[in-house]
Amino acid sequence: MSVITIERKVLEKNDEIADQNRALLKRHGILAINLVSSPGAGKTSLVERTLEGLGKRLKVGVIEGDVQTDLDARRVERYGVPVVQIVTNGGCHLEAKLVQDALLQIELRDLDLLIIENVGNLVCPANYDLGEAMKAVVLSTAEGDDKPLKYPGMLRNASVVILNKIDLLPYLNCNLAELKSNALQINSRLEVFETSCTTSAGIPRWCDWLMTKGARKP
Amino acid sequence: MSVITIERKVLEKNDEIADQNRALLKRHGILAINLVSSPGAGKTSLVERTLEGLGKRLKVGVIEGDVQTDLDARRVERYGVPVVQIVTNGGCHLEAKLVQDALLQIELRDLDLLIIENVGNLVCPANYDLGEAMKAVVLSTAEGDDKPLKYPGMLRNASVVILNKIDLLPYLNCNLAELKSNALQINSRLEVFETSCTTSAGIPRWCDWLMTKGARKP
Repeated sequence: MSVITIERKVLEKNDEIADQNRALLKRHGILAINLVSSPGAGKTSLVERTLEGLGKRLKVGVIEGDVQTDLDARRVERYGVPVVQIVTNGGCHLEAKLVQDALLQIELRDLDLLIIENVGNLVCPANYDLGEAMKAVVLSTAEGDDKPLKYPGMLRNASVVILNKIDLLPYLNCNLAELKSNALQINSRLEVFETSCTTSAGIPRWCDWLMTKGARKP
Repeated sequence: MSVITIERKVLEKNDEIADQNRALLKRHGILAINLVSSPGAGKTSLVERTLEGLGKRLKVGVIEGDVQTDLDARRVERYGVPVVQIVTNGGCHLEAKLVQDALLQIELRDLDLLIIENVGNLVCPANYDLGEAMKAVVLSTAEGDDKPLKYPGMLRNASVVILNKIDLLPYLNCNLAELKSNALQINSRLEVFETSCTTSAGIPRWCDWLMTKGARKP
């Protein structure tokens, strides 16, 4: 019983800091996206293709969340954008306080878009608001088309789902229409994208959509 | 501070029940494997191929853990083995108590091998002993070769790693030797298997190994 109470308190405290983050980001006119997925669904590759696809159209900052290593931050750094790595040391999700600490290390004045790449975990990050404008879930086609039904919590709390690795479809037992329909069955308001970070298919549409959402500064 | 204390108490209580499960399984001469992975790495397909590969050589029971749905239990049920589905309703890992409840629903006298398919999550299940003899981690090659370094906790606590979906290697940016070497860098005692549940490559070796471990009843 006490565990539940304390768990609630942890979430309440997290939501409070998330609201502070949201206010800070709003003041700077920054669109913040919380990018979530299973391990290896392609979040970092999507960040790379997004940075290439946007080019100089939006000024982007990236926060990389990982259980261990700074491999992802080093990949993203090559694109010349500000990157902060958060290592959770075994923690299964990012929390608002960790993101707040990271925000202090970025020159927010210069940004239009902040991508927060969460820890690879399709369950726990669903409950932790980081102060983002929206959650975007990346689902790899290699995971199979039943995943939205089996991990519905994340999709319920998301605004966007990105069906990634579509280049692998000929070799998989995964029906893309079924995957999409399962995602929309859980949350009919989801904006759906179909991408491959290997061939860059679908990346232009995703970047154009980000342009319409990522309010540029006057 | 109190959160940590209670978290420790939760784990202590879990370990106590896990020891009870282990004693019960040992009394019946059952080898129990806790099968863990990211969502969509192929745990259920591996269970299916394992049941086919073992044939009547071992009597197998299966506990299916899922955040939501009984899709996996229904897949496994077709093989005519006893299956119990645990739905965690949003919970990110199985706990020993849930497994204990499931064990009460299986005729243990008849079994040689119990496969417990955990929730798809490469982080949280690492810390929860279920009373198994060993954890087996399934890593999909589609997740990339850096995952052992980024999610080391699970591999540290495992005895076996199964590198699955090797049929996809020609289409992926994943170096199998590198994936294997990264896994062994985290835990050099890991028994390594390379499998495809689509072509059944590697399944005979895995099943033969299970035969050597799955102590048959006299």
